[in-house]
Amino acid sequence: MHELIARHRVEFSDTDAGGVVHFSRFFVFMENAEDEFLRAAGGGFTQTVGGRPGGWPKVAASCQYLSPARFGDTLEIHLRVARKTSRTLTYEYSIRRGGKELARGSTTSVCCVQRPEGGFEAVPLPADLDARIQEAPELR
Amino acid sequence: MHELIARHRVEFSDTDAGGVVHFSRFFVFMENAEDEFLRAAGGGFTQTVGGRPGGWPKVAASCQYLSPARFGDTLEIHLRVARKTSRTLTYEYSIRRGGKELARGSTTSVCCVQRPEGGFEAVPLPADLDARIQEAPELR
Amino acid sequence: MHELIARHRVEFSDTDAGGVVHFSRFFVFMENAEDEFLRAAGGGFTQTVGGRPGGWPKVAASCQYLSPARFGDTLEIHLRVARKTSRTLTYEYSIRRGGKELARGSTTSVCCVQRPEGGFEAVPLPADLDARIQEAPELR
Amino acid sequence: MHELIARHRVEFSDTDAGGVVHFSRFFVFMENAEDEFLRAAGGGFTQTVGGRPGGWPKVAASCQYLSPARFGDTLEIHLRVARKTSRTLTYEYSIRRGGKELARGSTTSVCCVQRPEGGFEAVPLPADLDARIQEAPELR
Repeated sequence: MHELIARHRVEFSDTDAGGVVHFSRFFVFMENAEDEFLRAAGGGFTQTVGGRPGGWPKVAASCQYLSPARFGDTLEIHLRVARKTSRTLTYEYSIRRGGKELARGSTTSVCCVQRPEGGFEAVPLPADLDARIQEAPELR
Repeated sequence: MHELIARHRVEFSDTDAGGVVHFSRFFVFMENAEDEFLRAAGGGFTQTVGGRPGGWPKVAASCQYLSPARFGDTLEIHLRVARKTSRTLTYEYSIRRGGKELARGSTTSVCCVQRPEGGFEAVPLPADLDARIQEAPELR
Repeated sequence: MHELIARHRVEFSDTDAGGVVHFSRFFVFMENAEDEFLRAAGGGFTQTVGGRPGGWPKVAASCQYLSPARFGDTLEIHLRVARKTSRTLTYEYSIRRGGKELARGSTTSVCCVQRPEGGFEAVPLPADLDARIQEAPELR
Repeated sequence: MHELIARHRVEFSDTDAGGVVHFSRFFVFMENAEDEFLRAAGGGFTQTVGGRPGGWPKVAASCQYLSPARFGDTLEIHLRVARKTSRTLTYEYSIRRGGKELARGSTTSVCCVQRPEGGFEAVPLPADLDARIQEAPELR
């Protein structure tokens, strides 16, 4: 696993008074693609790690906006694994409508378990995920 | 304590492509007024109850929309306690801009503690909150 | 057309610190089902009416919460047309997970065109929508 | 004008099931600080430019997350103008709680007017805004 294409139909609640998708919503679209990728790889946002509840808090997120998206648009969120370390995954995204790129983004998540007293602790990727996820070449 | 007036300046992210505040956001405005009221009464959304982490999950919410709110509007959220039972609080809200009523709503929350295994369990209002919160007459 | 079943996989951004779906998000799920219904009926949230840009602003919304929904749940949003007037549609919703009802709600929308100077004006349902949409019997 | 400190009390709807503020909400906090800054400079998100309705669509946004924010936290959003061109403003943000930096971000907005047929057209900053807004030294 090193890439995935997720789809999202733009909802009315994704838009703002400028008549287009609010810029913050693109990060939600990226996160949903990330979750879909992790599930396809046999994990998921809330998988247990060594018997403890896990999570993937983000340490970085960015987006460049090239062209607006509008209510009703069908978006393709192209995800690829840009970089894998022992405890982090960095994804790159290209958000497109009918082949036209509307936005380009990136997020970095850290593999964590929840501390019983609250908060997160970084841990190595579970072995099965580590074996199944590879860095990808350039985005298709 | 039986009433409170909260204020909210409409944010760009509150709006939708219709050019007005998205209808779902009024419920967030109500919830924020509820939290402000509980804090003013000495409690809060996440207060502990008998040493256990608490919460106020909603069992009902409704809103009538009379006139739209727009980006930059300063809203007054008038809250009153419409009904108090041993374990629930029902609030009524009037959301206004400059004296004009834009929406009228209601929510009902249940006083709960979190179960260690997950989920919520309804409990009586803590004695101090119960003593301080009364049902209100009509909304001013 | 008098009913429809929409589906939604609960996203991480739908949840709150209580560990469950935020109560305001159920109204977004209902709205998305409404939009899907209108499109299936040949219209849509932003269809033109008599050559003018239209819309369906809500005048009422309510929800009763019976059981929480969680991240990753697949929800079915059962929609039926509870009442049709010349200018309004009232929908009833039952939100379910695997046959269990988690919430029950209602929204009322008004068929409108946008005024050139801003704001909305109620108009009769377009003839084709009016012919295709009927009141439904009880929710299945 | 070259900097500003905005404040935000974290709302329950800002949080997610990880028990902390959802990463996408930091971008909303930044945008609200941007709007407050523009208003303080005599403009605003929706000011008219040369008699035409304007706007400040974003072309870039990024955030690094250092430490989580939680429900009820009072955040300070420190904004500075990092770069001004004839048509764009790039802001840097430091989001802090009690002096501790929780996140560091940046957004770039383009001064635009809305085209009558829809969409945006980049225009130079209005002269009064241009005169009042300067690039700032490092964030305090």
